[in-house]
Amino acid sequence: MATNITPRKDNYSQWYQDVISAGQLADHAPVKGCMVIRPTGYAIWEEIQAKLDRRFKETGHVNAYFPVLIPKSFITREAEHVEGFSPELAVVTQAGGKELEEPLVVRPTSETVIGHMYSQWVQSYRDLPVMINQWANVMRWEMRTRMFLRTSEFLWQEGHTAHETPEEAEAETLKMLEVYREFLEEELAIPVLAGLKSEREKFPGALRTYSVEALMQDAKALQAGTSHNLGTNFARAFDIQYLDRSNERRHAHTTSWGVSTRLIGGIIMTHSDDDGLILPPRIAPVKTVIIPLFKNPQEEAQVMAFADKVKAALGGAMDPLKVRVDTRGDLRPADRFFHWAQQGVPLRLEVGPRDVAEGKVMMVRRDNRAKTSVTLEALAQTVTDTLAAMQKDLFQKALDFRQANTHSVETYDQFKKTVEEKGGFILAHWNGKGEVEAKIKEETKATIRSIPITGKKEPGKCMVTGEPSEQRVVFAVAY
Amino acid sequence: MATNITPRKDNYSQWYQDVISAGQLADHAPVKGCMVIRPTGYAIWEEIQAKLDRRFKETGHVNAYFPVLIPKSFITREAEHVEGFSPELAVVTQAGGKELEEPLVVRPTSETVIGHMYSQWVQSYRDLPVMINQWANVMRWEMRTRMFLRTSEFLWQEGHTAHETPEEAEAETLKMLEVYREFLEEELAIPVLAGLKSEREKFPGALRTYSVEALMQDAKALQAGTSHNLGTNFARAFDIQYLDRSNERRHAHTTSWGVSTRLIGGIIMTHSDDDGLILPPRIAPVKTVIIPLFKNPQEEAQVMAFADKVKAALGGAMDPLKVRVDTRGDLRPADRFFHWAQQGVPLRLEVGPRDVAEGKVMMVRRDNRAKTSVTLEALAQTVTDTLAAMQKDLFQKALDFRQANTHSVETYDQFKKTVEEKGGFILAHWNGKGEVEAKIKEETKATIRSIPITGKKEPGKCMVTGEPSEQRVVFAVAY
Repeated sequence: MATNITPRKDNYSQWYQDVISAGQLADHAPVKGCMVIRPTGYAIWEEIQAKLDRRFKETGHVNAYFPVLIPKSFITREAEHVEGFSPELAVVTQAGGKELEEPLVVRPTSETVIGHMYSQWVQSYRDLPVMINQWANVMRWEMRTRMFLRTSEFLWQEGHTAHETPEEAEAETLKMLEVYREFLEEELAIPVLAGLKSEREKFPGALRTYSVEALMQDAKALQAGTSHNLGTNFARAFDIQYLDRSNERRHAHTTSWGVSTRLIGGIIMTHSDDDGLILPPRIAPVKTVIIPLFKNPQEEAQVMAFADKVKAALGGAMDPLKVRVDTRGDLRPADRFFHWAQQGVPLRLEVGPRDVAEGKVMMVRRDNRAKTSVTLEALAQTVTDTLAAMQKDLFQKALDFRQANTHSVETYDQFKKTVEEKGGFILAHWNGKGEVEAKIKEETKATIRSIPITGKKEPGKCMVTGEPSEQRVVFAVAY
Repeated sequence: MATNITPRKDNYSQWYQDVISAGQLADHAPVKGCMVIRPTGYAIWEEIQAKLDRRFKETGHVNAYFPVLIPKSFITREAEHVEGFSPELAVVTQAGGKELEEPLVVRPTSETVIGHMYSQWVQSYRDLPVMINQWANVMRWEMRTRMFLRTSEFLWQEGHTAHETPEEAEAETLKMLEVYREFLEEELAIPVLAGLKSEREKFPGALRTYSVEALMQDAKALQAGTSHNLGTNFARAFDIQYLDRSNERRHAHTTSWGVSTRLIGGIIMTHSDDDGLILPPRIAPVKTVIIPLFKNPQEEAQVMAFADKVKAALGGAMDPLKVRVDTRGDLRPADRFFHWAQQGVPLRLEVGPRDVAEGKVMMVRRDNRAKTSVTLEALAQTVTDTLAAMQKDLFQKALDFRQANTHSVETYDQFKKTVEEKGGFILAHWNGKGEVEAKIKEETKATIRSIPITGKKEPGKCMVTGEPSEQRVVFAVAY
């Protein structure tokens, strides 16, 4: 039992903070609401970046970089956009020792400045589509912050595309939603619901917002990624026009889509336990740690020589940078085990004098603590298989949890009782109106996480008004 | 001859801008002094990042992320630091709709905030060394800007390490200087002089600054990377103390080192010609473009099928994402050739109906325009060999240029004449005094680029004062 981590049942929110501290994932920055992403946490972000970036490129996108400072007047050009982001802006008013004539905002998102550039780059249909992604820091001044989930500065990627037709823009929006779904489920082992946001919950300035929604271990929802069809809203605000195939000027149809360092919070809250962080093997920056165990210099020499062979034997299974050897002989074995467990390393390989004699290592899984003695010959294959099994098991466990915490309700009373007593995803009928949605949020804190876009639509009656409803929508209390 | 690029001999500075525009490497941002790094330019930065990052990790460093906003008071804690950076700061004074109690600066560099965090993370010698790198955007408000070389915002990496002893800090500083030298020469094919900066030219707050200096085609120098031994200056300012092995409190010895998107400017100005960008193959994001040539649908079908085979044949030589097939049959072949030449793609493979009949492709090198007909069977090996040869040739050409433009002078008159008529690296004796250095800079615009740290020291007399000098130092007019 970890003594540096509050158990989940005692205080989930403190548990979350403790897992982050114990795993050395992040720390508070001197500026309120900002965080420092420490090496262990940042390495997870690097894995996320590498795996997503490959997917973006394979779907035809390229990366670019747009400036962090945006003229404040840009933000005001799209009416919903300015309303959504104004309260959260950080503003540069002085630079180079002088007051600026026009204040500059630190980007909260980049639709505006990218729209401005696209208007210069796009002249004809031949210049379309433009399919650009940016990896960047963004700033949204927050009052109540929580590491990774909501901080004033965070890291993210923002894709921004421009197309000839509404159909192409919608297809791109849905394609990237699917990229996120597949990435979250396959790499992060986080099952998600992909669906449409309600008008109230959509991105300020979007025509339609889609999202992937995950369920955390405390039965609260986490919006893990969003994909927006912006229609011609930003093209009109920033004059992105092109000559079409009939030589007529038209506004381009644009999209934007993003995920952020919030995903690290999602990984923590989906998989970890009361001993600390558990990382799905595919996203773990360190996949295996080798821990030589010895009591005297003679044993040390023997065991260290064998540990080198163990590391070499893993060469066929993984990049050497993903294996660590913990040689800190002055620390107790239990402390070394705990250190790596709390950093979420999926597999520990213990190597003691007896293992050396038998030509074996003791392999211990982080998630279920299963121990297996493995010969050096079988090691690469066994490690590969075990990591794959662990990845699958973590996903299945999270999926089982979500299924056990998904409830269908018929009446608003049942709904309120379920929100209060169980949480989770609640499937209910709704009349499609914003005022009802607002009333539900005010009375229960639950919001519509998404409107399903696949599966059979079952008509019914709005749980609040009794009016007709085409399909159930997904409610939850969310982070 | 490129009609969209001013020849170097007519106007070198305009040529540089034209190469950037023609290659679609970068564009002006709406905020003065900032730039947008377009996909072609950003892809070069991604290659730089991947290759440097691997080197940083192999030398024991890890990445992390520190906040972009720093309390203004932090900057003032180190006396030289505040003097150096104050005039260039961009300042956030409002956030979340309110005036901030303390203004925040957009990081110009992160020694201060990282020092603050290290003071919390480092307690004992067991916590040392700390070896962290950060990839980030930074802001230094500039009056006279030039794409990639000097912009108000730029992208860079900044390594920050903390050590027990002065010896370790110095060893780290020199190790990273060598990482930069090797990277620039091997990957970017840019020969550099590694050396020590004078007191006047060192980083504000450093004990000693080392740099790698390159010579551009107009015989001006470019500082391509710096590595600083910060001594205990920042440890004292931010209270980074540790209990040493004798249980005494001591200040840590810190270093920092960085290179930036300026390197892209260095690549352009070292290798490119009057037709536009030339990229060394090892850093080229697209290594080969296949251009199918056809005049009618029948030829098109034939040639496109063969182009697929050509792409497949390259599979053994490179990542498929590094090969492009230009299928724009509605553009003239010459326009397609030019498009890719100006993006710096090292090799073009032309595939026409006659090539299909012969089972061959025409391979054209970007740098010397050499054409070779290659069979499909020999393609992967020939392409690999040709790229390697081109890499070597580009480095040798740049080295020959530097050698032809390195001059030893004895008198200040010779020095002034050489600066004016030839430029280049000028080796001269100097008495080691700042006021003489300042006088030389004022009168000639030349500065001491570096004091050599390897090679034989040849004593002599200061060219200005006649006082004794231990060794020649390297002067140049620099970007």
